[in-house]
Amino acid sequence: MDSPPTSAGARGEPPRPPADRIRDGVLAILRGVAQVDFQPGHWTGLIFLAALFVGGWQFGAFGLLGCVTATLTAWLLGVPRDRISAGLEGFSGTLVGVGLVLYLGTSWVTALVVIGAAIGASMVNSALNVLLKSYDLPALTAPFCVVTLLMLIAAPSFHRVWVRHPRNVAPAVAHPGTAVSWTDVWHGFFNGFGQIFFQDKWYVGLIFLVGLAVSSRTVAAVACAASLIGLLMGWWLGAQAANLGAGLYGYNAVLTGIALAGTFVALGPVSLGYAAIGAATAAVTTPAITNTFGIIGGHALTWPFVLVTWVFLAAVPTLSRLRRTA
Amino acid sequence: MDSPPTSAGARGEPPRPPADRIRDGVLAILRGVAQVDFQPGHWTGLIFLAALFVGGWQFGAFGLLGCVTATLTAWLLGVPRDRISAGLEGFSGTLVGVGLVLYLGTSWVTALVVIGAAIGASMVNSALNVLLKSYDLPALTAPFCVVTLLMLIAAPSFHRVWVRHPRNVAPAVAHPGTAVSWTDVWHGFFNGFGQIFFQDKWYVGLIFLVGLAVSSRTVAAVACAASLIGLLMGWWLGAQAANLGAGLYGYNAVLTGIALAGTFVALGPVSLGYAAIGAATAAVTTPAITNTFGIIGGHALTWPFVLVTWVFLAAVPTLSRLRRTA
Amino acid sequence: MDSPPTSAGARGEPPRPPADRIRDGVLAILRGVAQVDFQPGHWTGLIFLAALFVGGWQFGAFGLLGCVTATLTAWLLGVPRDRISAGLEGFSGTLVGVGLVLYLGTSWVTALVVIGAAIGASMVNSALNVLLKSYDLPALTAPFCVVTLLMLIAAPSFHRVWVRHPRNVAPAVAHPGTAVSWTDVWHGFFNGFGQIFFQDKWYVGLIFLVGLAVSSRTVAAVACAASLIGLLMGWWLGAQAANLGAGLYGYNAVLTGIALAGTFVALGPVSLGYAAIGAATAAVTTPAITNTFGIIGGHALTWPFVLVTWVFLAAVPTLSRLRRTA
Repeated sequence: MDSPPTSAGARGEPPRPPADRIRDGVLAILRGVAQVDFQPGHWTGLIFLAALFVGGWQFGAFGLLGCVTATLTAWLLGVPRDRISAGLEGFSGTLVGVGLVLYLGTSWVTALVVIGAAIGASMVNSALNVLLKSYDLPALTAPFCVVTLLMLIAAPSFHRVWVRHPRNVAPAVAHPGTAVSWTDVWHGFFNGFGQIFFQDKWYVGLIFLVGLAVSSRTVAAVACAASLIGLLMGWWLGAQAANLGAGLYGYNAVLTGIALAGTFVALGPVSLGYAAIGAATAAVTTPAITNTFGIIGGHALTWPFVLVTWVFLAAVPTLSRLRRTA
Repeated sequence: MDSPPTSAGARGEPPRPPADRIRDGVLAILRGVAQVDFQPGHWTGLIFLAALFVGGWQFGAFGLLGCVTATLTAWLLGVPRDRISAGLEGFSGTLVGVGLVLYLGTSWVTALVVIGAAIGASMVNSALNVLLKSYDLPALTAPFCVVTLLMLIAAPSFHRVWVRHPRNVAPAVAHPGTAVSWTDVWHGFFNGFGQIFFQDKWYVGLIFLVGLAVSSRTVAAVACAASLIGLLMGWWLGAQAANLGAGLYGYNAVLTGIALAGTFVALGPVSLGYAAIGAATAAVTTPAITNTFGIIGGHALTWPFVLVTWVFLAAVPTLSRLRRTA
Repeated sequence: MDSPPTSAGARGEPPRPPADRIRDGVLAILRGVAQVDFQPGHWTGLIFLAALFVGGWQFGAFGLLGCVTATLTAWLLGVPRDRISAGLEGFSGTLVGVGLVLYLGTSWVTALVVIGAAIGASMVNSALNVLLKSYDLPALTAPFCVVTLLMLIAAPSFHRVWVRHPRNVAPAVAHPGTAVSWTDVWHGFFNGFGQIFFQDKWYVGLIFLVGLAVSSRTVAAVACAASLIGLLMGWWLGAQAANLGAGLYGYNAVLTGIALAGTFVALGPVSLGYAAIGAATAAVTTPAITNTFGIIGGHALTWPFVLVTWVFLAAVPTLSRLRRTA
C-alpha cells in the first residue's frame, strides 16, 4: 500500500516497484478482514474471507468491496500509512459490505450503496480516532455500526434501495419458545463466532474459530469461553431458544471477551474475571439494543460490544487492579 | 470499609480491627443512600432508608442490596477509598435496586438481576468519572439511568425476568384529565421528593424531606422551591393532573435544583435564578424523555435531571456571572 | 449591545450613549439571523428576515422573538461580548422560533414556549461551546436541534401547548410517488435554501439565495451545488418526488456544503470533493433521522447537517490532504 503520488513526492521517498505496491495492498485488505476480530495477521484474514465465501459468494464479494473501498478512501485522504497497512482502515468497511448485502439484497444498487457507506465508515473512523484519542479508547466497529444503522433506517425511504430487500426475521419469530435443545447449544456456540460477520451456519462459525486459533491459541480459548458465557446468560435469563441457537447472544460476548482479555487490557486473573463480566454484560445488552433499533427498522449489529467495551475500557484508569496494554 | 488484602498489604498499612471495618462499611452504605440526593451524612441516609421501608419492605431491601453490591464491586476492583467511604459508589446501585424491583416485581430472579445490574452500574460509574473529568462534570445518577434503562428494554426478551412483572401504568392512564385539584397540589409537592426513589405516597415524600432538612435547612428549602416550580410548570402547560399529583413533574426539578443551587454552583442571586430555570427545564424535559423511552418499554428515570444538569453545569465556564463550587 | 450594568462597572468602561446601544443590539440580532447560514453580515440577516416575513408574518415575528430572547439570555448571563455582537448567540433562537410556530401553531402560548425554549437553546449553546472546544468543533445548530426536538416530543403531554397545533404532514403523504417532474426539480433546488428556515415556497428560497450572494458569491455557488447534490442523491436512490420538490433532501446538504467548503475547511480541490461527499451524506442521512424521530413526534430539523458536519470536521486532523480554516 503506497501513499498518493503527491504526498509520496512531498516526503521525498523513492517510488516502489508496482509488484510491491500490489502485494502491500493485498496484505492490507486481508489484514482489514482479520482486524474485525482484532487479529493482525493476513493468514487469519484469508481464512475469514474463505469462511465468508462458504457462507455465500455475496458475503465474500461485498465484504471485499467494502474493505477495499474504505481502505482506498483512507489512502486517498492521507490517513497515516501504518494504520492502513495494519488493516485498521478496512475492517469496518468489510462489515458494512456483509451487513448491507444481507439486509438490502444482492444487486448492483446494493453494491453502489456499499461503496457510499464504506466511504462514510472511513470518515466516521477517522473522526472517532480523533475524538476518542484523549480517552485512549479505540473506535472498535463503531464506524460500521453508525453507517449501517443509518442506512438501514433510511432504506425504506429509497425505492431503488429497498425494492428487492429480502425479509430477514429473527429466528425466534419462526420458531418461538424458550426450551433449549442440545442442537441449540452447540450450534449457538459456533454461531457466536460466525454472527460477528452475520453468518448463521455452525460450520462457517467453525472456520472463523480456526482463523482465530491460527492467530493465537489464547485468543481462540478466550473466544470459546466468551461464546459459552453469552449462551449461559441467555439461557439462564430465559431467552428464546432459536435466537440462542443462531448465536445472537454469543457474538457480542465473543468480541467483548477478546477485546478485554489481552487485546486492550493486560491479561491476569482479575482481568479475566473483568472480561467475563464484560462478555456477560454484552450478552444481556444485546436484546436491549435489538428491541430499541428494531422499531425503526435497525438491527443490533455490534453496538452492544462497542458500548460495553467502551465503558469497561474507560473505567480501567479508576480501577487500580487492572491496567491497559501498552 | 477496607481495601482488599493484597492492596492493603501493598500499601503497607497495618490491619484494622474487624469492628472498625464493619462500622466503616455500614457508614459507606448509609452515605450511599444519602448521596442519591447529594447529601453526605449517614443520618440522612438512615432516614432515607426508613422512608424506603415505609414505602414497602421490598424497596428498602432491594435498595440496600443494590447499594451493597455496587459498593463492594468498586472496592474489589480498587476504586480510591475516599470515593467509597463518601458513599459515591453506592447511590446508583441503590436506585437500581429500587427501580428494578418496582418494574420487574419482587422475586429471587429480580434479586439476581439487581446484583448484575448494580455491578454494571459500578462499571458505568467508574467509566463516567474518567470520561467526564476533563469537563469537570459529575456522573450524577447517569450510571443508574443507563443500566436500568437497558435492563427494562431487554427484560421482555427474557422469559424468567419478565414473567412476574407487575403492570405499572402512569397515573394519568387510570385518571385522565387536566383539572388540577388541591389534593393533586399538596400530594404532588411531597411526592416530588419521594419519586426520586420511585415512591408515590405523600408521607413517604415527607420523610425524605425530613432527611434533607436534617442534612441542611438550605437544601430542604431549595428542594421545596424546586418541587413547586416543577408543579407550576406542569400545571401552566396543561399536564395531566394525576401525573402532577404523583410527583412526576417534581422529582427531576428537585434534583436539578439541589445540584445547581449550592451543590455544584456557588450560591448567589444569579445562581438561584439559574437553578430555578434549570428546575423548570427539567420539569418540561420529563415528558419528552417519558414519551421517547416509553415506546421501547423504558421509563424517564432521572434522565431529565442528568441531561439538564450536565448542560447547565457545562455552560458555567462561559457565563461570567456564575462560578462552580470548589 | 452592552454588557449588564454591574459587569460594565466592574470592567471600568465608560457608559455608551443609548442610541449606540440600540444600534449594537439591532445589528447583533440581524447577524444572529444571518449566522443560521454561517454568514456574518447584517444585510444578509435583513434579507433573510424579509424572506421569513414573505413566507408568513408569524415566521418573521417568532423568529425575531427567538433570536432576541436567546441573545438577551446570553448577555444577561455574561457570555463574552464578541460572541454576542457577531450574532453567534442568536441563530439557534431564530430557528427555535420559526420551527415551534410551524409545529405548535400561532398563539400566545407558543410565544411563551418560544421564549422558554430560546432560553434553553442559549444554555445548550454555552454548554456545547465548552464541551466541543477541546475538539475544535463548532456547536452549529445543535442547540436549536436539541431544544426543539425535546419540545416537539413533550408537546402532546401538555394540553395548552398542543391544543391548537396544526397538522403538518410530509409532502409525500399527500402526493405519493417517485416519478420526479421538472417542477419538482426546480422547486426542490430553491426550497433547499428555504427549508433551512422551514420555508417551502420556491420564491422564498430564492430570496435566501440572494441573501447568500450578497454575503459572498463563492458561498452562493457552493450552496447551489450542494442543493443540486442533495436532489441528485435523493432522485438516484428513489426518494419520494414530493419530498424532493419540497427541498427536504437539499437543506441539510446546503448547510453541510457551506460548512465544509470554505467556512471551517480551507478551500481547495480536495476539500471541494470532501464537501461534495459531505453534502451527499447529509442528504442520505436525512430520511434516517426523519424515520427515527418521526415515531416519537419529532422532526429531522437540521440534525443530519449537525451530525455529518461534526464527523467530517472531526476527521480533518487525521487526513493530511485537508486543513481547517484559521
